[in-house]
Amino acid sequence: MRFGKNTLRSIEQITMKILFVGTGLIGGSFSLAMQKHGLPIEAAGYSRKEANLDRAVELGLIGKKFTDLYEGVRWADRIILSIPVDAINSLLPKVLDEMNDEQLVIDFGSTKGKICKTVETHTKRNRFIAAHPIAGTEYTGPDAAFSSLFEGKFMILCQQERSAPEAMQSFVDTCEKIGMKVVFMDADAHDRHLAYISHLSHITSFALSNAVLAKEKDGEIILELAGSGFESTVRLAKSSPEMWVPIFKDNKAMVLEALRDFLSHTQKFKQLLDYDDTDGMRQFLENGNAIRKVIN
Amino acid sequence: MRFGKNTLRSIEQITMKILFVGTGLIGGSFSLAMQKHGLPIEAAGYSRKEANLDRAVELGLIGKKFTDLYEGVRWADRIILSIPVDAINSLLPKVLDEMNDEQLVIDFGSTKGKICKTVETHTKRNRFIAAHPIAGTEYTGPDAAFSSLFEGKFMILCQQERSAPEAMQSFVDTCEKIGMKVVFMDADAHDRHLAYISHLSHITSFALSNAVLAKEKDGEIILELAGSGFESTVRLAKSSPEMWVPIFKDNKAMVLEALRDFLSHTQKFKQLLDYDDTDGMRQFLENGNAIRKVIN
Repeated sequence: MRFGKNTLRSIEQITMKILFVGTGLIGGSFSLAMQKHGLPIEAAGYSRKEANLDRAVELGLIGKKFTDLYEGVRWADRIILSIPVDAINSLLPKVLDEMNDEQLVIDFGSTKGKICKTVETHTKRNRFIAAHPIAGTEYTGPDAAFSSLFEGKFMILCQQERSAPEAMQSFVDTCEKIGMKVVFMDADAHDRHLAYISHLSHITSFALSNAVLAKEKDGEIILELAGSGFESTVRLAKSSPEMWVPIFKDNKAMVLEALRDFLSHTQKFKQLLDYDDTDGMRQFLENGNAIRKVIN
Repeated sequence: MRFGKNTLRSIEQITMKILFVGTGLIGGSFSLAMQKHGLPIEAAGYSRKEANLDRAVELGLIGKKFTDLYEGVRWADRIILSIPVDAINSLLPKVLDEMNDEQLVIDFGSTKGKICKTVETHTKRNRFIAAHPIAGTEYTGPDAAFSSLFEGKFMILCQQERSAPEAMQSFVDTCEKIGMKVVFMDADAHDRHLAYISHLSHITSFALSNAVLAKEKDGEIILELAGSGFESTVRLAKSSPEMWVPIFKDNKAMVLEALRDFLSHTQKFKQLLDYDDTDGMRQFLENGNAIRKVIN
């Protein structure tokens, strides 16, 4: 395991045992960030993919592995679920069943409404924190993890009033110590906003990639012509289907709404071009330019 | 004017007088690149926007300005048109009219078919080179120019057989000296490929920006939630309407075809999600992933 410069302090502090369920980009980076910032942790991992688990140990993302999830759960003080949202939905109630009143489980799923609903009436609901770190890259797996992924990024926390206050406070402290900014948000509002500013961008990238690849069959010409503009627009199409299909399904209603909205704007532009409406096109582009105000 | 380390050589070489019509991101960067690589040039500029011209002088993009285009044309050995494509279409024949058989005019427009057609039968057609440097950012104007913009990038040249061989060779040499890779391509093929890998990406970015801004009226929430994924997808929506409306109009038929294609892929995904077709969605995303092979 790699520890930061404050390792010595950990002798005086209580070492916290953390089980990462999923030790890829997100879980692995979170572990590295805690280590880098000198948080006194002992990190272990569990994954259905044992090769990933071994690689995570090799890379120092975790110090040891569990091949039985529930053995890991019983060992840990905190459990962090950074796995696809469908897996979170199915595992979370079972993990809570196994936990005592000192332990804490946090999910890092990209959707929050359904997950919160799944454990709404669970007797240990207060030992769960619904979280979504707004950070990531288009790469996946332990090798994609890096310690600065979360620096300056937002951690969205939902239904904070349903989690035990001392547990919530402790997790907020952890996020702030690794350089994140914490935001509280209603779970449905989270899913609605994310449908527009994250899920939709991924679909348009995937659609663009499909359209271009179907047309440019040999691929070589793209390499030659693709300026950085195309590259940035299509970058998200490298994202993992294993992660993203469950997100789209989970947030189906809001993703469909965002898609309908996007399609109607795109069709509107097509019509403006079709009708040679220069002023209309200029207005459409100028409206789009307003994104400068919010994206630096 | 700024000159590179090879300035001394310019005493022995013949200094080439270059008029940049348009001294913004593209023209300005091309001048800086030539200076940086020690090419013996005297750079002047012309622009309808006199403030831009003065700023270009201040920044050393050009050494002097012309307020009369044709005075500048008569002064120059080479004229580089880096202005919106509608302005190129209207200026190019008039510039050729003024030129002698030693001079050369090169356009840097993002579409090539219509421009080539405009001067197809001009008696000085062989003093024209149709070029498209595949480089740029979402910023515009003299302040956006930088000397390394073109390094490692492609310069596409169309209808090379229609330009005088010695003029073509001299321009190819210039491109290679500033670190560009030269590619020859049919003008219509250029426009068809660019419709898919450049013009379409811009439209989807603008449409995404319109859709998100219409929904997220206060803007603040976007700032908080927008991960780098959204930022990269919507980056091109900052591009200049003045440049882009003429490109879309000029390449209308092919842009409409690309848009229809993109819309049909996006609608297909929407249907897969609507019908809970998990396998279909996974296949769609996996097909999109194939972009990894061509975009690093």
